[in-house]
Amino acid sequence: MTRAALIEQIKAKKSFLCIGLDTDLDKIPSHLKDHPDALFEFNKAIIEATSDLCVAYKPNLAFYERYGAKGWDALERSIALIPKDCLVIADAKRGDIGNTSKYYAEAMFNQLGADAITVAPYMGEDSVRPFLEFEGKWTIVLAMTSNKGAADFQWHGSPELFRQVIRKCCTWGNEDQLMFVVGATRPEGFKAIREEAPEHFLLVPGVGAQGGTVEDVVKYGMTKDVGLLINSSRGIIYADSTPDFANVARKKALQLQETMEALLKDRGII
Amino acid sequence: MTRAALIEQIKAKKSFLCIGLDTDLDKIPSHLKDHPDALFEFNKAIIEATSDLCVAYKPNLAFYERYGAKGWDALERSIALIPKDCLVIADAKRGDIGNTSKYYAEAMFNQLGADAITVAPYMGEDSVRPFLEFEGKWTIVLAMTSNKGAADFQWHGSPELFRQVIRKCCTWGNEDQLMFVVGATRPEGFKAIREEAPEHFLLVPGVGAQGGTVEDVVKYGMTKDVGLLINSSRGIIYADSTPDFANVARKKALQLQETMEALLKDRGII
Repeated sequence: MTRAALIEQIKAKKSFLCIGLDTDLDKIPSHLKDHPDALFEFNKAIIEATSDLCVAYKPNLAFYERYGAKGWDALERSIALIPKDCLVIADAKRGDIGNTSKYYAEAMFNQLGADAITVAPYMGEDSVRPFLEFEGKWTIVLAMTSNKGAADFQWHGSPELFRQVIRKCCTWGNEDQLMFVVGATRPEGFKAIREEAPEHFLLVPGVGAQGGTVEDVVKYGMTKDVGLLINSSRGIIYADSTPDFANVARKKALQLQETMEALLKDRGII
Repeated sequence: MTRAALIEQIKAKKSFLCIGLDTDLDKIPSHLKDHPDALFEFNKAIIEATSDLCVAYKPNLAFYERYGAKGWDALERSIALIPKDCLVIADAKRGDIGNTSKYYAEAMFNQLGADAITVAPYMGEDSVRPFLEFEGKWTIVLAMTSNKGAADFQWHGSPELFRQVIRKCCTWGNEDQLMFVVGATRPEGFKAIREEAPEHFLLVPGVGAQGGTVEDVVKYGMTKDVGLLINSSRGIIYADSTPDFANVARKKALQLQETMEALLKDRGII
């Protein structure tokens, strides 16, 4: 999905919501836990209940790898269900030397059918560039993450490491193929991020359970082209643990979509 | 495998060789390419031909994920073939927020049966600690990698980021559970690494095809307890592309083992 198509989807759906498919058999409703294809069945119900309210889904690979080959198979089939008007973000945080990153890119883009992958920047240019070489796909580099440990290294040095990461990455790719991960738990951080990447889309986890708010993220991070994909995982998919979970997930997604619609109108974007 | 058991294996086998199972269907001998279970059959031949000459195998996950669920299945079965006297290192370079890292750890340690996993440190403490919590398992954190792009961020700041990574990690775990990745392509870098981590085992890629030498790595990196696992992938597993490839791989591994034996004797370790 191109940048223009993504912006068009956001305007059409009045939403910049990304739903995290962090599907955890320890947390899904008990009536599904013993289903032989529980990961897939849960995802199917969530996708069918919410796909008109969001513009992206973000499965985190750890939740599937945990079940080995069976988990990968369930993930492949889940992704195949996602409508084409939604961006599929493989939240994999991969990164390795050149040829190996290329194979990770093949795994995510060709094998899983994802449109985007999250990438860890520690190994530098030749670990990031292979992802950028896939035409029509997105590379989403970790910049300022939402977790407590972000402070251990991401502020290191002067300029801070996260700034250095964004600066270097912006010489390797452009805003049509490159996004950054910025946690909602540090809304004041968006000022620094927007100094370095004024136009790029940002993938923003950390709203809801982790403590960030949509309003703060928009206040500090929104651009004239929106420039934000705000992710919610637990707050939507585990909002209810009864057989009615998908309807409740829809209600939670709808609340976020309505908040986003109001903010898009406030800004004159729709 | 405990640190003491690893050192014992190194002395018994007179080798600190790790063989990288970067099994690439584009590079394996042509008579195997069309085999329905080619990844597994290639690995089986390599493992059977070399397991008395090395103390570790290091499959890089990208080469298996590239084939989705089928690749994972082949990797699981390949790992099951590796004798218990060899350390299995899942070269996965994972790292995510706490609960998610825990699931990556479960994927590698429980599902795949690996003894060790490589971890990318960008997200900090709560992304690394979950791996350290697995009793009897190893966490191998990227410090100074062998690729050109290492220079983009790993030297950033003062002290350099790689030093900061080692310093922080050493407060989270000890040398019985924590190793660092240090590329053989920068032998002079080992001096700085050993200032920060005098006793830790280092996993050293970059010998052979990437240009590093065993002698240089030993000169700058070896400790009284060896403290090194030197990895070779392409130089061993793709040394020959005929049906005799496993024998040729054995010869290449034997050359490295003999070099290592001489160096261990020089140092009075065996």
